[in-house]
Amino acid sequence: MNIERVKTGIKGLDEMLGGGFLRDTANLIEGAPGTGKTTLGMQFIYNGIVQADEPGLMITFEEFPQQYYRDAAAFGWEFKEFEKKGLLKIIMTSPEVSRMDIESVGGMIETYIAQMGARRVVVDSMTHFTRLTQDPIDLRGIEFNFINALKREGLTSILTRESPVLLGESPQDDNLGFVVDSYLMLRYVEIESAIRKALLVLKMRGSDHAKDIRQFDVTERGIEVQSKFEGQEGILSGSPRRMADSFVEAFIKN
Amino acid sequence: MNIERVKTGIKGLDEMLGGGFLRDTANLIEGAPGTGKTTLGMQFIYNGIVQADEPGLMITFEEFPQQYYRDAAAFGWEFKEFEKKGLLKIIMTSPEVSRMDIESVGGMIETYIAQMGARRVVVDSMTHFTRLTQDPIDLRGIEFNFINALKREGLTSILTRESPVLLGESPQDDNLGFVVDSYLMLRYVEIESAIRKALLVLKMRGSDHAKDIRQFDVTERGIEVQSKFEGQEGILSGSPRRMADSFVEAFIKN
Amino acid sequence: MNIERVKTGIKGLDEMLGGGFLRDTANLIEGAPGTGKTTLGMQFIYNGIVQADEPGLMITFEEFPQQYYRDAAAFGWEFKEFEKKGLLKIIMTSPEVSRMDIESVGGMIETYIAQMGARRVVVDSMTHFTRLTQDPIDLRGIEFNFINALKREGLTSILTRESPVLLGESPQDDNLGFVVDSYLMLRYVEIESAIRKALLVLKMRGSDHAKDIRQFDVTERGIEVQSKFEGQEGILSGSPRRMADSFVEAFIKN
Amino acid sequence: MNIERVKTGIKGLDEMLGGGFLRDTANLIEGAPGTGKTTLGMQFIYNGIVQADEPGLMITFEEFPQQYYRDAAAFGWEFKEFEKKGLLKIIMTSPEVSRMDIESVGGMIETYIAQMGARRVVVDSMTHFTRLTQDPIDLRGIEFNFINALKREGLTSILTRESPVLLGESPQDDNLGFVVDSYLMLRYVEIESAIRKALLVLKMRGSDHAKDIRQFDVTERGIEVQSKFEGQEGILSGSPRRMADSFVEAFIKN
Amino acid sequence: MNIERVKTGIKGLDEMLGGGFLRDTANLIEGAPGTGKTTLGMQFIYNGIVQADEPGLMITFEEFPQQYYRDAAAFGWEFKEFEKKGLLKIIMTSPEVSRMDIESVGGMIETYIAQMGARRVVVDSMTHFTRLTQDPIDLRGIEFNFINALKREGLTSILTRESPVLLGESPQDDNLGFVVDSYLMLRYVEIESAIRKALLVLKMRGSDHAKDIRQFDVTERGIEVQSKFEGQEGILSGSPRRMADSFVEAFIKN
Amino acid sequence: MNIERVKTGIKGLDEMLGGGFLRDTANLIEGAPGTGKTTLGMQFIYNGIVQADEPGLMITFEEFPQQYYRDAAAFGWEFKEFEKKGLLKIIMTSPEVSRMDIESVGGMIETYIAQMGARRVVVDSMTHFTRLTQDPIDLRGIEFNFINALKREGLTSILTRESPVLLGESPQDDNLGFVVDSYLMLRYVEIESAIRKALLVLKMRGSDHAKDIRQFDVTERGIEVQSKFEGQEGILSGSPRRMADSFVEAFIKN
Repeated sequence: MNIERVKTGIKGLDEMLGGGFLRDTANLIEGAPGTGKTTLGMQFIYNGIVQADEPGLMITFEEFPQQYYRDAAAFGWEFKEFEKKGLLKIIMTSPEVSRMDIESVGGMIETYIAQMGARRVVVDSMTHFTRLTQDPIDLRGIEFNFINALKREGLTSILTRESPVLLGESPQDDNLGFVVDSYLMLRYVEIESAIRKALLVLKMRGSDHAKDIRQFDVTERGIEVQSKFEGQEGILSGSPRRMADSFVEAFIKN
Repeated sequence: MNIERVKTGIKGLDEMLGGGFLRDTANLIEGAPGTGKTTLGMQFIYNGIVQADEPGLMITFEEFPQQYYRDAAAFGWEFKEFEKKGLLKIIMTSPEVSRMDIESVGGMIETYIAQMGARRVVVDSMTHFTRLTQDPIDLRGIEFNFINALKREGLTSILTRESPVLLGESPQDDNLGFVVDSYLMLRYVEIESAIRKALLVLKMRGSDHAKDIRQFDVTERGIEVQSKFEGQEGILSGSPRRMADSFVEAFIKN
Repeated sequence: MNIERVKTGIKGLDEMLGGGFLRDTANLIEGAPGTGKTTLGMQFIYNGIVQADEPGLMITFEEFPQQYYRDAAAFGWEFKEFEKKGLLKIIMTSPEVSRMDIESVGGMIETYIAQMGARRVVVDSMTHFTRLTQDPIDLRGIEFNFINALKREGLTSILTRESPVLLGESPQDDNLGFVVDSYLMLRYVEIESAIRKALLVLKMRGSDHAKDIRQFDVTERGIEVQSKFEGQEGILSGSPRRMADSFVEAFIKN
Repeated sequence: MNIERVKTGIKGLDEMLGGGFLRDTANLIEGAPGTGKTTLGMQFIYNGIVQADEPGLMITFEEFPQQYYRDAAAFGWEFKEFEKKGLLKIIMTSPEVSRMDIESVGGMIETYIAQMGARRVVVDSMTHFTRLTQDPIDLRGIEFNFINALKREGLTSILTRESPVLLGESPQDDNLGFVVDSYLMLRYVEIESAIRKALLVLKMRGSDHAKDIRQFDVTERGIEVQSKFEGQEGILSGSPRRMADSFVEAFIKN
Repeated sequence: MNIERVKTGIKGLDEMLGGGFLRDTANLIEGAPGTGKTTLGMQFIYNGIVQADEPGLMITFEEFPQQYYRDAAAFGWEFKEFEKKGLLKIIMTSPEVSRMDIESVGGMIETYIAQMGARRVVVDSMTHFTRLTQDPIDLRGIEFNFINALKREGLTSILTRESPVLLGESPQDDNLGFVVDSYLMLRYVEIESAIRKALLVLKMRGSDHAKDIRQFDVTERGIEVQSKFEGQEGILSGSPRRMADSFVEAFIKN
Repeated sequence: MNIERVKTGIKGLDEMLGGGFLRDTANLIEGAPGTGKTTLGMQFIYNGIVQADEPGLMITFEEFPQQYYRDAAAFGWEFKEFEKKGLLKIIMTSPEVSRMDIESVGGMIETYIAQMGARRVVVDSMTHFTRLTQDPIDLRGIEFNFINALKREGLTSILTRESPVLLGESPQDDNLGFVVDSYLMLRYVEIESAIRKALLVLKMRGSDHAKDIRQFDVTERGIEVQSKFEGQEGILSGSPRRMADSFVEAFIKN
């Protein structure tokens, strides 16, 4: 069994993941708009190239490559240069095309992988697959096959998914969480009249992982994971309460 | 990369935005009726004209230009005069017409932009785009293309969106939040038996921004941003609780 | 710009409105059954006639004129007499008929206005417009046009709307709140094992207004607005909590 | 104007109603199964006969007359005897038939009224009218006409309605609450690990009324209204909280 | 009027019911999976046979008689023996067949009743009737007729119903609660990090009954009703809070 | 009656189950993604083989056998070896095929059972049965028959079911909980800013069982059940509160 780790290069996150993702796994990153899903994905690709010598692909179903160049450049990651050097390929496509391509022999994606020696991929975002069918069971089959095709190509993937709810949980999870190997959640949390960001590794197949809900920031160097939240109940609701202990502590100090 | 700032001219807000919006970006302002979305948009246009020498457009899908003249005049902003001088153009149109116009070469909007040298636009409101299709995926594509057309024209835009829920979050966000570059929320908050207004920059692509939830008022000079809320939990629910610390403080003082 | 005030003649309310409604505006009064929407509307008409010398119309889509005579008489307002003197006209009609009538030249409503010199109108209730179409976007267009027709006729209007939820907020507001000039909410609130009534001016276009949530009663003289609520959190939920400060105060006193 | 009172003969209730229902009005009693709606209706009929010399009708859409005989007899009310003496008539019918009958001249119900001199009626329950149409607007029209027909016949009516939710509010009220003259709610409330019953007069057109939420019991003599609840917040939710004052009081006493 | 009591033979329950069910009534037992509905029903039948000399029927729409033999035997109730002696009959049928059979003269069920002298019946479960029609009004009519047919046959019945929600209330009650003579609820309650069971008599037509929410266990002797819950608020939500008094008590003791 | 126990070999769990599952029963394990449903199932099979000399089957509707080999190997369970020795068979099939196969005489599953002497089966997951029909009543019938077929083959089964909600209860349980013999829930619980896992035996037909909500971990040796939670209210909501007693205790200690 292969327990080789694929480091994200994000310090606190690799630690939470017990060293990184497992090789050839599909890893879901879910969050509301602005939580940093795409940034996390780009950082995974960037660190793969500069730290692990692993070329990467970005498959996008909406944004233009220019947008990724700009967004990455804001963190000092020169995606355009990487692409020229054959270390990165941003593929703008559709769910329809990409799933047929990846599942066929000698398709475009497979060709890029062979040419580049790509080992990592970000799919931004899986939410666009919902346009393929109204039937949740069909959708699950499509997603399952797509994910397995990525694995067969020897890729470790980050799959982003958009959460339609700004604070707290979506009323109902679709099936993707059951199909992936790991499941990371990015969440907004309102604490002391400000919005902070929280990161949680909910699930990780075949590996131990941190159970803490950690704070993180998107800084000029990308995602930076910080310590866990303290003294709060109900963080995942997005609107936590200060705990009784904190109350008592405050009471005593006064 | 272009990190030129487009100032709103609203003091506290520019500070929250790290100096203003980024040039050529689309910026969503969401709020319930009466929270001040349109006022914020008009103020952005007004300050663009008088402070930054940037002519502006207002694209409206419902209200008549006369209503904007009146509403602006209540703040001392003479939109009618600006229009005569070619610094402002209020275009009353429909989503159907405007999206075709903006995406075609030499359309009416493009012609106005060329004539006026317009750099700013307010679209009031994006909610009217929902009439174009029942399919949320189609709608996302339409909105994405419309927003990109505005950017291609060299416009920095404010897009208003109506929140159907008076207090707290809408049960489900549509896709627009994922497509825009920044996302501002205006909210009603009930505190001490009165209704106050809150402003939050939830997301801002390519820039740091304030994470605080700030109070604001609509005064006779337009929107005025104030300090953050203090001692409250759950502000974004619209119905916050006083925090334990405040309780303790009150307890001790008594 | 016209900032002439149209007084409701309800003391606390005119104060909350900064002097009264603005001339030629549409003003929404929303509430659950029994909160006093129609009473507020009748009082607006009554005070218009006796205090401001402004004749008024009541457009009703369900109740018979006799019901209004009876209900008004209970407050000592002799609507039947007013109607004989040409100071009041109660028009029982349907949304279908009234919208065509008001939008056509020389229609029945326009004729009454001309004959009577009417300046005020109550439409009781806008909820009946929902029967005209299933499509919320069509409905918004219809309501928008109807409201504008009332304004063109030189009428300052109160539009009642029925809230289907007894306590707390409706799950989703329809579009009417965005279209009107001001938006008043009447609410039931459970405090100390009794039901009280609350009044709030949520929105008022072109004017400052009170932000307090005030208590009110329907007495034998009509609506009487009282002081704001004190020491309660979550009033608009209909089921408020006593605040920590009140708790502490009670604690200390004991 | 007629402000004659129609006493229910239920002591605390008549007091809450300012002396009783108004003559020729329609009065809605809403509650979950077992709260006592039908008992209240039967008691209204019984007291009408023995205390006010007013014969009464019961219109039922489901239960057999025998069930009412039995249920009434459990309280010592001899409905079978009353029926023999022409003081009471239990009419088992359908919403379809009854609405056509009551709205036609010389129908069965009208004939009974004329023969008996009936002044009171209980309709048990209005919920069965929902079978007449799927369209809430049509339903409102049907109910409005039915209620007005009862009034035209000189009847003061109690209309029962079934609440589908056991504790707390129905998610959405239908339109009936807007159409009736008064609106009484019967509710289950969980207090100190037991279920109590609560009574509230939410609305009463043309009369002042108690705003308290009162406890009541169904005893062997029928409904007995007791004092209001004390020291509880959120009674109408069905699951109230003890108030801070009660907490403090308990704290001090200990 | 018949106020003869039909004892369940479950000690605490008969006490809660004021001595037992009323003769010839339909009694609803509702609960989530595993709460003990069927056990209660079997115990009612068992005690009828051994304590009251009343043979009984079990009508089942899903489980095989063998399952009941096994389940009953686990409590030491030898249903197979009873069936041989003609004291019990387990009828496995469908809602379609059973409703036609019971409503026809000389049907199978009637024949069994005549042969055995059956006085009690358990219908397990009424939930299967929902397969007969999509229309809730039709369903109510069908259930009403079925229940009345059981009464006409001189049977006192327990009707089980499955609650689809594990903790707390179903979002909406169907109509069956209005049609039956008594309504018992079995509920899961989470207290001190364990799941307990609660029993409540919500409604009982024609009789007084306990209003307490009582704990119960399913032991090797069947259902055993215990004392009421103490010091908890919101038991029926399934997730109660400790009450302030308990808090204070704990505070003082420490 | 057979009260032979089928041990899961998971120490704390067998204790909670009063010694293990009952022979020839169907046992539901429900949980969100990553809670450990499949791990529990594999451990049941593994311990059956090495501790109880009972060969086992795994019926899978989505994952490939290779995935189970890998996942099991991570715990040191050599499923591939077992399969070679005829102690285990992983059958990848569809709900359609498997239900027809298991219900027919001499089908594939029956043949495997006969050849291997299999006594245990894991069906992973029952959620895939929902693709067979839209009608919940049909689905219940299909599941009921499938479960009974497993029992007839002399198999003790674990049936996994996916919960679509990450924290707290699904809005509505389907019917499977009523059909199975025991019902275990795996839940995420947020405590002190971290996510823990909880295990509960909600229902167990024909046996006493622990009512506690216990913590558990998925370690490198599989599922390990720990002590119950302490000092928390509302664990099953996923977002518990510290209890008043814990508050007081903390208060006193400080």
